[in-house]
Amino acid sequence: MIQPIVFRDNTLRLLDQRRLPAREEWLELTDPQQVIDAIRDLVVRGAPAIGVTAAYGLVLGAGRLRESRPEFDQDFAALCDRMTVARPTAVNLAWAVRRMQAVVAEHPEAAVLALRAALLDEACAMQVADVEANRALGHHGATLLSDGATVLTHCNAGALATAGYGTALGVVRAAVELGKSIRVIADETRPYLQGARLTAWELQRDDIPCTVITDSMSGHLMQRGAVDAVVVGADRIAANGDVANKIGTYMVAVLARENGIPFYVAAPTSTIDLELATGAEIPIEERDGEEVLVIGDQRMAPEGVPAAYPAFDITPAHLVDAIITETGVARGPYDTSLRACCTATEGG
Amino acid sequence: MIQPIVFRDNTLRLLDQRRLPAREEWLELTDPQQVIDAIRDLVVRGAPAIGVTAAYGLVLGAGRLRESRPEFDQDFAALCDRMTVARPTAVNLAWAVRRMQAVVAEHPEAAVLALRAALLDEACAMQVADVEANRALGHHGATLLSDGATVLTHCNAGALATAGYGTALGVVRAAVELGKSIRVIADETRPYLQGARLTAWELQRDDIPCTVITDSMSGHLMQRGAVDAVVVGADRIAANGDVANKIGTYMVAVLARENGIPFYVAAPTSTIDLELATGAEIPIEERDGEEVLVIGDQRMAPEGVPAAYPAFDITPAHLVDAIITETGVARGPYDTSLRACCTATEGG
Repeated sequence: MIQPIVFRDNTLRLLDQRRLPAREEWLELTDPQQVIDAIRDLVVRGAPAIGVTAAYGLVLGAGRLRESRPEFDQDFAALCDRMTVARPTAVNLAWAVRRMQAVVAEHPEAAVLALRAALLDEACAMQVADVEANRALGHHGATLLSDGATVLTHCNAGALATAGYGTALGVVRAAVELGKSIRVIADETRPYLQGARLTAWELQRDDIPCTVITDSMSGHLMQRGAVDAVVVGADRIAANGDVANKIGTYMVAVLARENGIPFYVAAPTSTIDLELATGAEIPIEERDGEEVLVIGDQRMAPEGVPAAYPAFDITPAHLVDAIITETGVARGPYDTSLRACCTATEGG
Repeated sequence: MIQPIVFRDNTLRLLDQRRLPAREEWLELTDPQQVIDAIRDLVVRGAPAIGVTAAYGLVLGAGRLRESRPEFDQDFAALCDRMTVARPTAVNLAWAVRRMQAVVAEHPEAAVLALRAALLDEACAMQVADVEANRALGHHGATLLSDGATVLTHCNAGALATAGYGTALGVVRAAVELGKSIRVIADETRPYLQGARLTAWELQRDDIPCTVITDSMSGHLMQRGAVDAVVVGADRIAANGDVANKIGTYMVAVLARENGIPFYVAAPTSTIDLELATGAEIPIEERDGEEVLVIGDQRMAPEGVPAAYPAFDITPAHLVDAIITETGVARGPYDTSLRACCTATEGG
């Protein structure tokens, strides 16, 4: 199984997703600031993967803070603040940081050495739970795909975007495990090309047929009847079912609806943010336009022409046919169904 | 004025659009096969530009064919067949070739030397008429844009796509000439990046503000109210108003309708194909997937993963708010209004 995040011997090893598929390079990080930089620079991306990475970043940090309390608590809180703002849209980052902060809060009398061990346990538990959640949601979602289906996906919501197995690609993998024949059409997903670089790489390793298209082609293929279902991941889901995901997802959702094709979102409940009523409250990260203008080392537009780079968009809930979580498949109205999914997690 | 096609001293000079904006290189062609290759390899692209280029290619060919008749006529017909299939979607190519064939047919007794002169005259006339048509349609279309409007465009329907001035960008240029303040958002237009490379280059030369986005961002910007109108060109328009244009146009049109934004198509009547009842009859060019997978000299997806590359798509007429031609602005139902535009041309 592809596992992009490995923590061992007090070192966080991250598969450098900027280099894939040309090179499989691993970065070895020992300092929490390196982890913040790695998240910001897209060494690792994908909401669940960012969450687990941040948790290990805090483990690394805990080993370097003042060793007495309450000084440790103060330092840890400051580090958590810096970690949380590394990227704003994926709620899993803040969610993971809050879980780590809770460990500290729950052990007010513990020695720092014991606290470090508890933090490492918590990060490991999150990593294991993420893979389990993906397997569970994958198997829930697999029932939605017919044998022989062609599934279009946008960005990479695969093993590389999670602790392993994937969300949208987890649904595909689970369907294949059930013996269904599934073909994938991968939007290349400019500007970072997660689809062409990462989704294609993952699926090739799993021998699942994949065809890459530019983001501008999905509508045409849907219009021609070449797509049976769309499955994407999510970076944050509001209480009403509005979905923040990689820029371009909204266009895919509108085109799917226009062409009568089901549009599914696959995400663990850690991606659901019940504190936000609607997607309008989700912060959309604006990245540097240079990342749009320069591909490889080549500038595409003339020097001096600016670019915009909103990194995510909001797909309104009414365009989402189902949200696939580890506790079940939610359908609209999402205000009640998503809450039920989250409660089921807490209960189980 | 940017003029991408120059014929002088029996040599066709083409601005090599594959190299822009990094380098302004001109190819000098003297052989009709070079012209066919240049059209196929996207040295020159854009329906009206292809038409004019093909006409000059036939002029070059006429200078190399057997110098007696009817041998000349046979050779010329064979060359016309080869020229017509260089690219299938843009009707202007076949239209220009037919006009050149008509010159031969209309002078059954002429000496080949005289025929060559007549063919050169016809090609020059087409080039001049295309610029005039663009200026005329530009000024018709300019009335549709408000002062201060932000116009989104897809691909390059500018001077580089025509004999000069442009269709969609002609509308923008004409609005600016009328004193309106217009900002352009240019879809980068993968895989060939006509937007980032060519539209941005043209507009920068004309000091018209332009921001580049990836093709996946237009929906988000429309949703956020950042786009006032969409104006695109066309490669072929069927009698019912269905529009073939660069892949991705259909998605932009669906998103514009979803967000209540007017979607305009700017094209000379030479792009209207009254012989095709609907867009379903328009052939869609399928290009080599390698052009999707390799950017610059860098392969994006893993070796062995295929890509699809339908180069155009069909926007159904019901999504098109107006078709702007040199003889006026057509509105739906297009069956009657487009015919009227074409008749007005013939009359004038």
